[in-house]
Amino acid sequence: MTNLAALTAELPDGTVVTDPDILASYRQDRAFDPDAGTPLAVVRPRRTEEVQTVLRWASANGVPVVPRGQGTGLSGGATAVDGGIVLSTEKMLDITVDPVTRTAVAQPGLLNSEVKKAVAEHGLWYPPDPSSFEICSIGGNIATNAGGLCCVKYGVTTDYVLGLQVVLADGTAVRLGGPRLKDVAGLSLTKLFVGSEGTLGVVTEVTLRLLPPQHTPCTVVASFDSVRSAADAVLAITAKIRPAMLEFMDSVAINAVEDKLKMGLDRGAAAMMVAASDERGANGAEDAEFMATVFTESGATEVFSTADPDEGEAFVAARRFAIPAVEAKGSLLLEDVGVPLSALADLVAGIEKMAADTGLMISVIAHAGDGNTHPLIVYNPADAAETERAQKAFGDIMDLAVGLGGTITGEHGVGRLKKPWLPGYLGPEAMELNRRIKNALDPAGILNPGAIL
Amino acid sequence: MTNLAALTAELPDGTVVTDPDILASYRQDRAFDPDAGTPLAVVRPRRTEEVQTVLRWASANGVPVVPRGQGTGLSGGATAVDGGIVLSTEKMLDITVDPVTRTAVAQPGLLNSEVKKAVAEHGLWYPPDPSSFEICSIGGNIATNAGGLCCVKYGVTTDYVLGLQVVLADGTAVRLGGPRLKDVAGLSLTKLFVGSEGTLGVVTEVTLRLLPPQHTPCTVVASFDSVRSAADAVLAITAKIRPAMLEFMDSVAINAVEDKLKMGLDRGAAAMMVAASDERGANGAEDAEFMATVFTESGATEVFSTADPDEGEAFVAARRFAIPAVEAKGSLLLEDVGVPLSALADLVAGIEKMAADTGLMISVIAHAGDGNTHPLIVYNPADAAETERAQKAFGDIMDLAVGLGGTITGEHGVGRLKKPWLPGYLGPEAMELNRRIKNALDPAGILNPGAIL
Repeated sequence: MTNLAALTAELPDGTVVTDPDILASYRQDRAFDPDAGTPLAVVRPRRTEEVQTVLRWASANGVPVVPRGQGTGLSGGATAVDGGIVLSTEKMLDITVDPVTRTAVAQPGLLNSEVKKAVAEHGLWYPPDPSSFEICSIGGNIATNAGGLCCVKYGVTTDYVLGLQVVLADGTAVRLGGPRLKDVAGLSLTKLFVGSEGTLGVVTEVTLRLLPPQHTPCTVVASFDSVRSAADAVLAITAKIRPAMLEFMDSVAINAVEDKLKMGLDRGAAAMMVAASDERGANGAEDAEFMATVFTESGATEVFSTADPDEGEAFVAARRFAIPAVEAKGSLLLEDVGVPLSALADLVAGIEKMAADTGLMISVIAHAGDGNTHPLIVYNPADAAETERAQKAFGDIMDLAVGLGGTITGEHGVGRLKKPWLPGYLGPEAMELNRRIKNALDPAGILNPGAIL
Repeated sequence: MTNLAALTAELPDGTVVTDPDILASYRQDRAFDPDAGTPLAVVRPRRTEEVQTVLRWASANGVPVVPRGQGTGLSGGATAVDGGIVLSTEKMLDITVDPVTRTAVAQPGLLNSEVKKAVAEHGLWYPPDPSSFEICSIGGNIATNAGGLCCVKYGVTTDYVLGLQVVLADGTAVRLGGPRLKDVAGLSLTKLFVGSEGTLGVVTEVTLRLLPPQHTPCTVVASFDSVRSAADAVLAITAKIRPAMLEFMDSVAINAVEDKLKMGLDRGAAAMMVAASDERGANGAEDAEFMATVFTESGATEVFSTADPDEGEAFVAARRFAIPAVEAKGSLLLEDVGVPLSALADLVAGIEKMAADTGLMISVIAHAGDGNTHPLIVYNPADAAETERAQKAFGDIMDLAVGLGGTITGEHGVGRLKKPWLPGYLGPEAMELNRRIKNALDPAGILNPGAIL
């Protein structure tokens, strides 16, 4: 504790927190890792220099540091470790927007929604939109290379990161990239840090690329009596146009949402698609009509189109509400496996069979246009046998996805929960390459130990 | 030579070439580095396993390996070194296209234009379009993270690379990523290899993301009597819409092109812009009209719009022809500095002043919408004093760009020609980080020694 006192003394008052109740609230992120440790302290710096102080101190004292954004991660990437520091970026909230270069320089603690709002005030748009955009931090988005609904057209977080300031394990601050739309000077280190889940350094500032504002979308909703028909429609649509959203909900999700929102969804449907085009003017309506036609020709039992933004948003909100709605049925293990588009129907069919075989409720919602699914495994934690079946299903779904040419994680990250499946997915050569990079940047292994590797 | 005989024996007949005339033709790429060495051999493998054989042999014997695509690089990234191997991917030409997942798996030796053609046969589009697309290889594009004309809207090479197979310095083959649109399992190593200029491994296969076909563009051409007016128009356009092309030519380029093509360009203009929108239907015409209005309001002296694809392509071809046209005036040092968009006019003004002060002919063409310029320094290599002035200007332009918040290379790479300027641009911390990664992946430094670092 003498050592911690030295750190406390070096930082502004209140930066280092050791109150046990507060520490307890920083043990887990939304993955609720049961193996979470209790940190020595939570440190909430405001400036890059303070992050450097923390990491210099941690390196000198061999103390592990777990970087944390808003703690909304779903893979245990911010699970605290015993005797370590949780370095929370929640007080790093500055943002400046340059409308001329269409870039923003933001600190990592800002919510994704706060970034969107700040740039919108300058008539600009930051596209990536994880469903959790109102509660997740931009720093966490960078750590996981977060996706979202509009990513099918607009790409993921890394596509909008032009530059970073990162603090390395030894406390060195490094600037990578910057407000230049093209820059190939040196290795692509900016891109390496995006998605590194706090294992290579702590991001203290990001330069984001922004777009002109999105046009009001036209939305198409369709119900299907078979998952395969919905999946066929996804392929037919993405072969021809670039929808701004192409979301899937299965029967369990439809009913769970309808239980709560009572908006008249078709409870008998096997699948529902929520699609949108944000093309300007007549093109948006034309795309919506094309998607409606494809849905019908693929066997949709009901198709509804609207150019009214509020009406459209209601369906998007229903899709976003699927996770909390299914969560009302029990505790969730939240998956995010992805497959090549052609394997989407097989993946969902395999999960349905798994649910039937195990008696578990498993709902599948998906960013269908990306082949990125969120199987939601419902279980009762008080029921030990069911919990075990759920945990087995969590792994079996990853194995199923990998067997279909897919990945164990499309947008949530490996964190600690998915770590056991990473070697099987990547293979020994790519695992070794991950380790070499980690060792080169954090030889003492103090940064987020136990995450990814 | 005994050692080389061992390599020759391990590879199919004809793979290892030692004919001195052939070796001479592999000494330089289009940077024509005067310090190029003479390789021990040129090796032209066809398969990943053969590349592994080469690298295992090279590692065992401490022989440097310079990977080479079609040798069209402009920064000396494929300059041969004395006693080394040039590993040419020119015979690695397989491609398979999967229209269902909208991906292609290609070997690195294919020309960019061949990739475009192969995927077009399946109704798909590979966007990145360096001006050299008909002569540069896709492997070289990956090595430099190449840009191009449509990148202002569609992004650069890395945005289309979903997966790679790479062979490391020790001969290990590693698969990274694959045909999944989202995948965050493990560190972002695919992205790390893109733009690594052959210093971290040899790319033997790439999985490319493809888009539905581009719509026929509407093209707008405008002449200006001041560079600043043209630059102002760039900012006004990109703040509101996403053009598919926004190209700039200065007075020198306009006149050089007109000398050759005699297409009636305005020889008196200080700048010419060639812009395009590929939005569908009426939106394309609307965007073109918007751009024409902005050009006029920014002070254009002449504005011409066309929805005729052949007429539009003639202007794009004129822009693409600028480099050979200026090259007809003398030898070229071809720059590719980039700046934040707001500094574009200052960069061009600074270069014009440099030309006036030194008496050199320097033409500036630019992917203006990206802030990425190609200053072309014309000199007579037989005139030692002029050559020296040109070489000094080459460096001065990079210093000027960096002083304006820009980069020393937007899309050509550092190679060997720009290496002296990299430390000043990146700073000691980022340089050290580059070195750490290089050392972690190629500890003996046999891969493209002398490039980047």
